[in-house]
Parts: sequence; structure tokens; C-alpha cells
Amino acid sequence: MEAYLDNSATTKPCESAKKRLNESIELLWGNPSSLHEKGLSSQLLLEEARAAVSKVISCETNELFFTSGGTESNNIAVFGAAHAMQRRGKRVLVSSVEHPSVAKAFDALENEGFEVVRLPVDRSGLVSEEAVFNAVDEKTVLVSMMAVNNELGTIEPIEKLSQAVKAKNSPALIHVDAVQAFGKIPLNVRKLKIDLMSVSAHKIHGVKGAGALFVRRGVRLAPHVFGGGQEKDIRPGTEPLPAIAAFYGAVEELTPAKSLEKLTALRDGFVSSLSALDGVVVNSAATALPYIVNISLPHFPSEAVLNFLSSKGVYVSSGSACAKGHRSPVLTAAGLEKEIVDSSLRISLSRFTTAQELEKCAEAIGEALGTIRRK
Amino acid sequence: MEAYLDNSATTKPCESAKKRLNESIELLWGNPSSLHEKGLSSQLLLEEARAAVSKVISCETNELFFTSGGTESNNIAVFGAAHAMQRRGKRVLVSSVEHPSVAKAFDALENEGFEVVRLPVDRSGLVSEEAVFNAVDEKTVLVSMMAVNNELGTIEPIEKLSQAVKAKNSPALIHVDAVQAFGKIPLNVRKLKIDLMSVSAHKIHGVKGAGALFVRRGVRLAPHVFGGGQEKDIRPGTEPLPAIAAFYGAVEELTPAKSLEKLTALRDGFVSSLSALDGVVVNSAATALPYIVNISLPHFPSEAVLNFLSSKGVYVSSGSACAKGHRSPVLTAAGLEKEIVDSSLRISLSRFTTAQELEKCAEAIGEALGTIRRK
Repeated sequence: MEAYLDNSATTKPCESAKKRLNESIELLWGNPSSLHEKGLSSQLLLEEARAAVSKVISCETNELFFTSGGTESNNIAVFGAAHAMQRRGKRVLVSSVEHPSVAKAFDALENEGFEVVRLPVDRSGLVSEEAVFNAVDEKTVLVSMMAVNNELGTIEPIEKLSQAVKAKNSPALIHVDAVQAFGKIPLNVRKLKIDLMSVSAHKIHGVKGAGALFVRRGVRLAPHVFGGGQEKDIRPGTEPLPAIAAFYGAVEELTPAKSLEKLTALRDGFVSSLSALDGVVVNSAATALPYIVNISLPHFPSEAVLNFLSSKGVYVSSGSACAKGHRSPVLTAAGLEKEIVDSSLRISLSRFTTAQELEKCAEAIGEALGTIRRK
Repeated sequence: MEAYLDNSATTKPCESAKKRLNESIELLWGNPSSLHEKGLSSQLLLEEARAAVSKVISCETNELFFTSGGTESNNIAVFGAAHAMQRRGKRVLVSSVEHPSVAKAFDALENEGFEVVRLPVDRSGLVSEEAVFNAVDEKTVLVSMMAVNNELGTIEPIEKLSQAVKAKNSPALIHVDAVQAFGKIPLNVRKLKIDLMSVSAHKIHGVKGAGALFVRRGVRLAPHVFGGGQEKDIRPGTEPLPAIAAFYGAVEELTPAKSLEKLTALRDGFVSSLSALDGVVVNSAATALPYIVNISLPHFPSEAVLNFLSSKGVYVSSGSACAKGHRSPVLTAAGLEKEIVDSSLRISLSRFTTAQELEKCAEAIGEALGTIRRK
């Protein structure tokens, strides 16, 4: 038995996703922009998919734009909002534990002359509500905060953003990178009162190559990508219909509440097993999303443990998949000690994860502690 | 029998593409950036695909970067080159018949303060070699010209670009949008002496959602998309592996020389049939790529004819799929009369197109001329 526990990096496509994708490849392969019958049937599929994804976040279908994935959604949102708003002010806020597609976009804004304020976090990666409240002001034009941290699973106080913006009489647009949260916790863009939200398909058992960006009606974005007018020019370029079809299928299969309950129980059991091992530190908070468990094995380098586990058929990650061997900026921003950061592992679950897989993982970690040479 | 003749908008996925795609969905669904076994096997597929696509254009594998498609490739190339080069000069050249993903990117550069020179074309959409030669100068930092025009099929004088750049002692980088040419005519980036080239998968029987950008070794692009470091940060974001796998399969099946020969014969026969009809004007030059035949039926609005043909199971386009009902800027730039532009149809072939499909199309056009009300 293999134990795939790197579901925050990517997930195995589910049956509904594959079914919709195959239908798109076999029958609905026309270009949705083509005006003939073959185009119209593809357009229908595209609009059905749009309705399905919109429903998950409670937005209107004309507020949802398909993209090639979370990174593109984040880039379009951050640059589009900052550039559209820059006449009103050049102060922008961002949490210090964002995914590189947001963090580096803000670095680029800083190079353009924006004043970038990076909101600090506590040891669990949590942005303080007070910090948000204090940082927002009348010159702030954009605030970006992820819904769930991709390395620690921390659930960030998104609902406080709009409260702060309102209380401080700020014109700021609010962007939320919800790639790790989408389909896992309730995300109602109306209740959250946010303007922009990024989501991705391949983290919820769709396939790589599709994502979406929610843009609240009335919000104007400066264009970041130029092309033939698709997706109302928010993201021009022929829509990646096969991946969008799979996104549609993946969304159809979602059972967020049931999965959350199941995973909370699994996670709690798993954390107990790990805590019983001598030499394991759990970095994720008990209140974190149960899909992500971040741990450290001090003095055991992440990569050595990761390779050992991989050889046993247990697949986890060191930091995020994107970081690929670099020291995690997220854990560093959380103020974790070098030794904790360098020995960290992210174990990420999906609704298909079984207790057996987690037992196998805990056993293999125990073995690693007894086998690998300490640094 | 249906006659799908809108292959410049998109093509039906071929068997090899579907096979590779399915393998990626079923088995190789790991994240290529993950360091464990499941990631490595996906990375291997990614690198095999890269080698296969690189071979078609005779570049090194480390000069080829996967993107989400032609539009993204063009945006990354145009903005990346212009912004990287702007200290040396702000003069940029572009043909006046580019796809919107290039044309509008240059419009955006103009808004940023670049001097944009748009090279005129003749009635067949051909950029004159003399115009290129005269326009390039020492302050020119970027020249962009498509290899094959997407509406007329015109084969542009790409090889003249590097000659002009050299002769005029210009530092200009040369970008070629080869979306309609890739896999159809020889494209050797070394012989053409170009710096950047955009290609797309779904125009050659791959699937929508993958493309690639050739960046000559030594050429530095300013980043346009920010993220987790994938594709050496030229196009960060998790690679759309299923669509890239299909791209790989599509490339494996290519037989460019054989297809070109077959299509030249088919096109010549088709154009003869059309010319025998009273009221058909052929806009594509006899020297155009035989995959694209642009015609006009003066006084018969494109959309009415397109809908009539669609009802008969014949699928063609009015202008490009992207234009979706707007008057073609390409045909307008070519100086064609309003009446010719408003009644234009693009009939685009693929290597799977049969003589029977073209006969059916010619017959249906004949019927349309006798049925639809003249304007």
C-alpha cells in the first residue's frame, strides 16, 4: 500500500473529474468562441462548469472567470487591482505567509513604487486581527490574505478584512487566495464581503491546468494578460476546456462538511500517534484545517526524511511543492527556529485519505527517526 | 457526414494525444515539483514532452518553457522582451496583422510610452521585406511577426527579420508567433535566427490548455508572471501536465511534410471548386499555407452564411474564432473592402481533412449563395 499524503501539492483526479474531462476530449472539443454548433456545445459545457464553480463560493456566474490555475488567478488579481487603484493610493497590504504567486507579485509592486506592508504572523502562521485593523488606512488600495495557509493549514481571519476596511473608511479591494481552502471550508464571498478570490482545480481532485478568479461585480481590474477577449478579457486566451471540465466534475463530487468531519477525526488520531513518537514537533495549530499537518523532526533534514519515506511508498513534502528544496519562507516568517524549519515536513490529506495510510505514515516516520543519521 | 473546417480555431484531439493525456490522468498525476517518487515520475513525463516539442523547432530543451497556451506565450514574450530591453531603447516593431494576444500587448506597450511601429501588409496580408528592412534601426529593441497569419494563411518573411536586424546593427530581439505554423511548415529557430517563438498544442490535435515559449539561451526576459519557480520562473505555476502530455502525443503523430503535400493538393482542388461558383472571392494567396482558405461571398453577411453552413454540418469561421462577430482587424489591415471583410469566411483544414469534407463544404456554400438573402 502506498500512502499519498501530499494532497496540498496536488491530488489524484476523481472519477467525476475524469468523466467530464473525457467527455470534453471525445465530444466537446470545439472552441467555445466558435460561432458554429461545435463551438456552442463547448460553450454550454463551459457555462455549466462556471455555474457549478460559482455555486461553491456563492457568487454570480458573471463574476467568475476561468484561468489556467491559482498562480495566474493570483497574478491577475494582485496586479489588476493594484494597477486599477493606484490613482487612489499606493499602499498595499499582504500577509507575510502568502504563496509565492502572491508574495512575489507584491515584491514586484514594491519595485514599481508601491508601499507594501507585510502583516506579521504568530508561530502558527496566524495573522493577528489587530495587525490587520491597525494596518488598513484610507490610502490602502489592496489587501491580500490567503484563506488557509498552504504549509501550516492555518485558517486566516478573512472575515476581519472587510470589517477593518469598513471601519477605517478605506477604499481597499480585498483579495483572498483560497486555493487551499476551496471545497474544504465554507467560502461565501457575500458573507466574507471580499472583492477577489483565487481558486484552483487540481487541489480538489480536478486536474492541473484550470483555476478561477472571482471578481465582484463592479470591481474593475487593469488588464494583465492581453488577447482575444475570452473570459471578458480578464483572462483572454482559449479556455483550457478539458481541465475546466474536470474542475466541474471535481466540484460535483465535493462534500465539504462531511469531509471536514472525517478529516478532523483522522487528523486528531494521526497527531496523537505522532506526538507519541519521541522527537516529533507538531507545527500546525490544533485549530488548523485538518487537511494539513506540518511537523518537524529536529536534527533530521527534511529531504533525507522525505526520501526515506518515499522509498517506503509514503509521499509527503518539505514545505510546499513549489519551494522545491528552498528553506520555507512561510515557516521562517512564522518565527520558527532554523532547526524546526530545516526539519519540517508537510503531511497533507484529502477526503480519500484513510486511517491506514496515516498509520503507515506515522510508522514510517518512527522508522526514519531510528534509521536516518541525525545532523 | 459532418465537415469540421475550423481547424485554425481548434482541432480534434488525436489518438496519441488522448493516450498520453490519459496516462497522465491515470498514473502520472503527481506534481512535477514534488520531490518524492510520485513527483519525479511526473517530472520525467514533463521532460520527455519538452524534448519532443523542442525537437520540432530544433531548440535545446533548456530553451523551451511550457505555458498555458499561445496567448500566454505571446504575452510573456512581448512584455518580457520589451521590459528587459527598455533601457536600450523604446522602439518596437510589429506586423499589422498579428493575433490580438500580440497586437493588444503592443497597444499596451504604446500606453506605457513605447514607440510602436506597425508594419503594413499587402492585400494578401504579407509584410513587405522592404518595410521590415526600413523600419529596423539601432533603437529598435523588439520585432514581432507571426510565421503564418491566422486568418489568411499568409506565410510571413520571418527569415528576413534577422537579416534586417543584423544589417541595421540593431539590438532588437525577434519574436515569432508560430501558433498557426507549428507542426505544419519547417521552423528551425537556429536557421531563422530568432530569439523567441510561441507555439500552441490545441491547433495540432493536442488539447486546449498547453503551449510553449522558446527563449534562446542568453536572452533575458523581465518576469511577467510571478510564482513558485516552475519553468525557471518564465512561466511559474504548476505545469498543466495533462495538456502538456497531450501536446507530447500530438507532436509524436506529426508528419509535417507529408501533410503539407496532401493539403496542398486538397486546397488546390477546393479553391478550383469555389472559383467555379459565381460570387466567391478567394482572399488567401495561392502561396498561402494550404491549411487556411479565406474567402468572401460579397453581399452575404459572414454570420448568416456561417449559421447556414453550421445547420448543414459544415463548420467554418468568420475571421478568427477569437474575434467572435467583430470585424476582422486582419482583413481590414490588409486593405480589403468593407464588403469583402463583412462577408469573409475562414475555412481551415487539418491533416485529417478529406476531399469529401471539402466537397460538402463547396456544395453547401453553393447552396448558401442560392438560399440566403443578399444584403
